Amino acid sequence: MSLPSAGVLRAAKVANSALADRTTPFVQDEWYVAGFAEDFARSLRKRKILGRNLVLFRTESGLPVALDDRCAHRSFPLSRSTLDGDTIVCGYHGLRYNAQGNCIEVPSQPKCPRGIGVRNFPLVERGPLVWIWMGDPDQADAGRIPDQAWLGSGDWTRSQGYFALPASYVSLHENLMDLTHLSYLHAATFGTADYAKAPYEATIEDGHFVLHRRVEPTTLPPVWAEPTGIKGNTAARIVDSEFVSPALHVVTARFLDTRLPEQERREFMIKTAHIPTPETLTSTHYFIVHGRNFALQDESMTRFMHEQLFTAFAEDVDGLSAIEAVLAETVDEPFEISVASDRASVAMRRYLKQRSDGRTPTPEPAEPVATDLDAGA
Amino acid sequence: MSLPSAGVLRAAKVANSALADRTTPFVQDEWYVAGFAEDFARSLRKRKILGRNLVLFRTESGLPVALDDRCAHRSFPLSRSTLDGDTIVCGYHGLRYNAQGNCIEVPSQPKCPRGIGVRNFPLVERGPLVWIWMGDPDQADAGRIPDQAWLGSGDWTRSQGYFALPASYVSLHENLMDLTHLSYLHAATFGTADYAKAPYEATIEDGHFVLHRRVEPTTLPPVWAEPTGIKGNTAARIVDSEFVSPALHVVTARFLDTRLPEQERREFMIKTAHIPTPETLTSTHYFIVHGRNFALQDESMTRFMHEQLFTAFAEDVDGLSAIEAVLAETVDEPFEISVASDRASVAMRRYLKQRSDGRTPTPEPAEPVATDLDAGA
Amino acid sequence: MSLPSAGVLRAAKVANSALADRTTPFVQDEWYVAGFAEDFARSLRKRKILGRNLVLFRTESGLPVALDDRCAHRSFPLSRSTLDGDTIVCGYHGLRYNAQGNCIEVPSQPKCPRGIGVRNFPLVERGPLVWIWMGDPDQADAGRIPDQAWLGSGDWTRSQGYFALPASYVSLHENLMDLTHLSYLHAATFGTADYAKAPYEATIEDGHFVLHRRVEPTTLPPVWAEPTGIKGNTAARIVDSEFVSPALHVVTARFLDTRLPEQERREFMIKTAHIPTPETLTSTHYFIVHGRNFALQDESMTRFMHEQLFTAFAEDVDGLSAIEAVLAETVDEPFEISVASDRASVAMRRYLKQRSDGRTPTPEPAEPVATDLDAGA
Repeated sequence: MSLPSAGVLRAAKVANSALADRTTPFVQDEWYVAGFAEDFARSLRKRKILGRNLVLFRTESGLPVALDDRCAHRSFPLSRSTLDGDTIVCGYHGLRYNAQGNCIEVPSQPKCPRGIGVRNFPLVERGPLVWIWMGDPDQADAGRIPDQAWLGSGDWTRSQGYFALPASYVSLHENLMDLTHLSYLHAATFGTADYAKAPYEATIEDGHFVLHRRVEPTTLPPVWAEPTGIKGNTAARIVDSEFVSPALHVVTARFLDTRLPEQERREFMIKTAHIPTPETLTSTHYFIVHGRNFALQDESMTRFMHEQLFTAFAEDVDGLSAIEAVLAETVDEPFEISVASDRASVAMRRYLKQRSDGRTPTPEPAEPVATDLDAGA
Repeated sequence: MSLPSAGVLRAAKVANSALADRTTPFVQDEWYVAGFAEDFARSLRKRKILGRNLVLFRTESGLPVALDDRCAHRSFPLSRSTLDGDTIVCGYHGLRYNAQGNCIEVPSQPKCPRGIGVRNFPLVERGPLVWIWMGDPDQADAGRIPDQAWLGSGDWTRSQGYFALPASYVSLHENLMDLTHLSYLHAATFGTADYAKAPYEATIEDGHFVLHRRVEPTTLPPVWAEPTGIKGNTAARIVDSEFVSPALHVVTARFLDTRLPEQERREFMIKTAHIPTPETLTSTHYFIVHGRNFALQDESMTRFMHEQLFTAFAEDVDGLSAIEAVLAETVDEPFEISVASDRASVAMRRYLKQRSDGRTPTPEPAEPVATDLDAGA
Repeated sequence: MSLPSAGVLRAAKVANSALADRTTPFVQDEWYVAGFAEDFARSLRKRKILGRNLVLFRTESGLPVALDDRCAHRSFPLSRSTLDGDTIVCGYHGLRYNAQGNCIEVPSQPKCPRGIGVRNFPLVERGPLVWIWMGDPDQADAGRIPDQAWLGSGDWTRSQGYFALPASYVSLHENLMDLTHLSYLHAATFGTADYAKAPYEATIEDGHFVLHRRVEPTTLPPVWAEPTGIKGNTAARIVDSEFVSPALHVVTARFLDTRLPEQERREFMIKTAHIPTPETLTSTHYFIVHGRNFALQDESMTRFMHEQLFTAFAEDVDGLSAIEAVLAETVDEPFEISVASDRASVAMRRYLKQRSDGRTPTPEPAEPVATDLDAGA
């Protein structure tokens, strides 16, 4: 009998209903990345975040600005209007807005009416990223922006990129949380066959989820073998996939040459900030910043790694797009069955679902999610 | 605080709910323009009006015809069938319809069944336009077709054009009613900076709305300066935007050279019939007939003005399309805030809303629409 | 008055509500054609049938396989995965499925959980076709596959083709059942003017519907005149359109030269299996197998007939697409009026509606469908 058994099916549907997916409303009260620093410039740029159209620019003194991209008068897109100093002049009837979003001029009348304006969104610029708060403005506390010192540190060399991902940000978080997919989706790039079978440990805390995996001994794919010089089947590849917030996932990998005595081993570390900003429920701005803590001045190595990595990340975009297409046209009530290695990502999705509902996340239950499926683990 | 204030927001939402917009059902009992005279020819043409697919043609004796574009038998489009004399032979099973829409032959049987037919729509041809009545046929009174003698008069020279406008016909009427947008949307064509600040008067009557504006002294843009010869900042530009019916908006502009003594001033007059026939709620057949009462024989002037004007009208199409795109994906309950110069267009939209509901329009209240917003006027 | 009369309209709407159309749910418990034999190969192919995405392949020993095209774990399309022997290895996390759809390996854990799998669909290969059962597996009885010996017989020469038809499979059955359309839709190919007026007989049985038509004397179009050599207006063209099942329509045509004495006449027979497999409610996999029982070895004749026929079938695809487009945007409650020659197809559509509802088809009533319309017949 090839169908999932009735018991598995029932358990899967109950479990699924508690997990965030492509239909789950956004988590509003959270800091997201609105763009790279250079996306805020002296011209008007349109970007949709959490389903809202925004217009982005930078003031003459250099402050980033994000406003609702719709004139309060007759809904003309401000992103198609004129940036005049630190104000936007609507391209339809000339209403002028300042950087706070207040309308300060209506050309057809001598005085501007009181109280007209468009919504302004709190922004905080940190190193290469500009963070935005889309939720209740009273809750916008810059202290809650995830601290990632390496993004601004001179001890790291970085490169960055962007993908328009036609899939839910939830699916991207889950992709990153279970890197067993490296052996399959990335078989042609940075995956190796032994990756999926390596031992792992899950850390499941309140709003913080980590999957730790150690592959040893292993052969590094070129993207890591070339920069580290660790070739042949003598490497240790130690990876932490860390869900930092709904807006940020950081993957940290350390590489060691296990031929060397333990005290002589040099640790090469790379970090990748995977930054999924929801555009709509089923599309995502996928910002990426990659860094390494070695060979800091080697620009050709930066280019080599960037090219190799972004080829692999494009495989994720492609794969997640394919899944989104499947789900969008699935006839039956959709359900998915989780296996043992999904424990961290399932906990993460339960957390996102709870955040979305505005409910306080409850502690992760002690028992694993789909008990009967762990039998084989 | 950049949000619209709570009081303004509340007033705007209440006001908006009484105004026609992109979601308001069509006004059925009205004469619309189905096409230019030449759109009705000896071949079958498909056109959708008020959401209905029609087939248009002209009989051998020259009468325009509009029928439902769907064979009553198996829904084959008659516009893809054969025009045979004054009949249409369906391209699927050969049912033959006369110009009244009656089925007069079913090839597979010797006698045609009684009572089969497709709906025929009353048409009236007047000069360059063919008017159609989509509503209750018993109410089709040609006497209600707007009288615009200049459209057929030898005292005027005309040119005409068409745009497929991907926006509501309501938005086009509103665009025409508030020409302060000339200074912004048409800054590169026929707008001038002083236009938006010029004094205006609104005439608000039952189903008839006019915005009168006098810009003086002003500099005419080339489209008017060239034909009139009034160059330099010595012109008076007097414009009436007149909502004639849901199907017709006429803009009349008069140009005078104010350097001359009043009794010596020659008045140059142009008229533009802006004809928005709804295709769907959010797309519009935008027919335009432009005319002037001077230099009647100057064909190069006709070409020059046509080219200049239609470049400007394309800016309207572009701008209204942009707004439609914004509204189509607005997350919040949409609302817009009106200012003092919107008084006539707001009254017009209230009238269209009432007509759509089939209710008798009530007289415009004496107080302006959004009182607190007029404070600055 | 050109509208359908109120009585006709009322009768049409009542009649229509009992007939299958583009909105009627699929008939699930039925054998459909999943593809030509060669569509099942040693690579993974995606195909949607009755709204479900399937992955098709052939095992090493040659058996065709159809599975749900969605990994049970995280919904990755199996059709974008890897075929490894007789198993599919999911392209995301490496779950391995056998040809029965059972998951037999989860790489991240030593033992595979029990009870995971994807649905497997019963298939039966018969000559050029592979049949699939999408309904209740317990009802899958290969004895119900329509018997069409000519499809596998050495006494027939065949050619085959495929169209992606953007219309309901119901409309294709109806198209085939009423060949009066040959005179109009196929006027340029295999229709002749006399076809629509020829006498016909309808056979209406429980789930079996035939329209028999004899056109005599007639002139054969080139596609039949060339192979049979019957030129001039001396032919008899005898055609049976037979609804065999929701999945199969067979048209059989016999050609005779009526100049010859009856006992000397040679009968040339062609058969066309029109195979409409619903992809969605409004799109259809249109498989076609055409055969003849004469000039079996003449390959240039096969090519000639294939080219002529598929040009004509493309006219059907085009016409049915046009109708689907009309119906998709019809404003009014759609209705269609049937005429006398529709009796068999109306009975067939009533049967499909009943099958769809899961109700037992009731015997066709003795009285014709739309009595008042037969007045003219």
